[in-house]
Amino acid sequence: MYPESLNNLIESFKYLPSVGEKTAERFAFSILDLDDDQVALFKESLDAVRTKVHTCSKCNVLTEDELCSICSDEKRDNHVLCVVEDVRSVFLFEKIGMFKGRYHVLNGLISPLDGVNPEDIGIDKLLDRIHQDHFDEIIFAFKPSIEGETTALYIKKILDGLNIKITKLANGVPIGADMEYIDSLTLERALSDRKEVS
Amino acid sequence: MYPESLNNLIESFKYLPSVGEKTAERFAFSILDLDDDQVALFKESLDAVRTKVHTCSKCNVLTEDELCSICSDEKRDNHVLCVVEDVRSVFLFEKIGMFKGRYHVLNGLISPLDGVNPEDIGIDKLLDRIHQDHFDEIIFAFKPSIEGETTALYIKKILDGLNIKITKLANGVPIGADMEYIDSLTLERALSDRKEVS
Repeated sequence: MYPESLNNLIESFKYLPSVGEKTAERFAFSILDLDDDQVALFKESLDAVRTKVHTCSKCNVLTEDELCSICSDEKRDNHVLCVVEDVRSVFLFEKIGMFKGRYHVLNGLISPLDGVNPEDIGIDKLLDRIHQDHFDEIIFAFKPSIEGETTALYIKKILDGLNIKITKLANGVPIGADMEYIDSLTLERALSDRKEVS
Repeated sequence: MYPESLNNLIESFKYLPSVGEKTAERFAFSILDLDDDQVALFKESLDAVRTKVHTCSKCNVLTEDELCSICSDEKRDNHVLCVVEDVRSVFLFEKIGMFKGRYHVLNGLISPLDGVNPEDIGIDKLLDRIHQDHFDEIIFAFKPSIEGETTALYIKKILDGLNIKITKLANGVPIGADMEYIDSLTLERALSDRKEVS
């Protein structure tokens, strides 16, 4: 029904997460209305992202260089390491701009049920780095889940006796949330971790 | 914060309709996980759509050839012409597959308030075609709106006396809709256009 190239473009847009037939069609039609240099940038960056972007040799954050901009920033705090489950988490933290330490990106979380074992998520590389770089504190910033807990506990056990403070993100009621929409597990946690009003 | 090429890709995705920062980021990250040939198809079709696709010289539907697949299909009914406001409408009708006549795509609808006059939407080309091709019926398939009514009335006036049946799509309650969500104009129209139960 559509011309072949338009059809191919629609199929391409359907590769994107949660883009179905209708949205892909809308996207493809919108490409016809763009300026030439917008489409040129689109094509170039599709290419560049695939050829130039790779993971930082130290922390696994995405970068176009050998070391990412965070690892090569000498002003950052070398005493604290924030361990995250994927690259996107790093960018989320960087957007807040509150954390000034170093990051280390794991390749997901341990999940025996899905066949993901400690060696699959790059824990060796993390441990090597921890032994080399002498951090005072390691923060686990995983999503609250069985996999997150498992991964945190597994690493903590290995690091026991190294005299490193090991912490994780606080759980509780998200700011701005309507109480009626909070699930019971979150509420339980918020209650048991309650803080004194100061 | 992001590597430059990733940043450019995110900006590119933001050209798409109703894609904001967060969605663009999600799309850009997903590109990193695609297969090489998926990205190749993406790039090629972005290019091809811009270079190969143009409007049919007869009806303005998008095509890669001189005449679109509908105009060059000799099996279709030459007696009925469906006039639509944009190319997407043609593809919507073709998906239903019920209409077997010819199409003509206008370049939008007459809208004096927005400075869109009859000569801007290609009515001359439509009239030329109608005089040449001797249709028995012309169906206006515009969106129900002041602009749609204006455009339909304008063309109908010009065609008066040509002995062509001129029709438009029925308006009314959409199938499957909850009555409580129907706006009052639609309900009014559905009531005044009510049909005998047969």
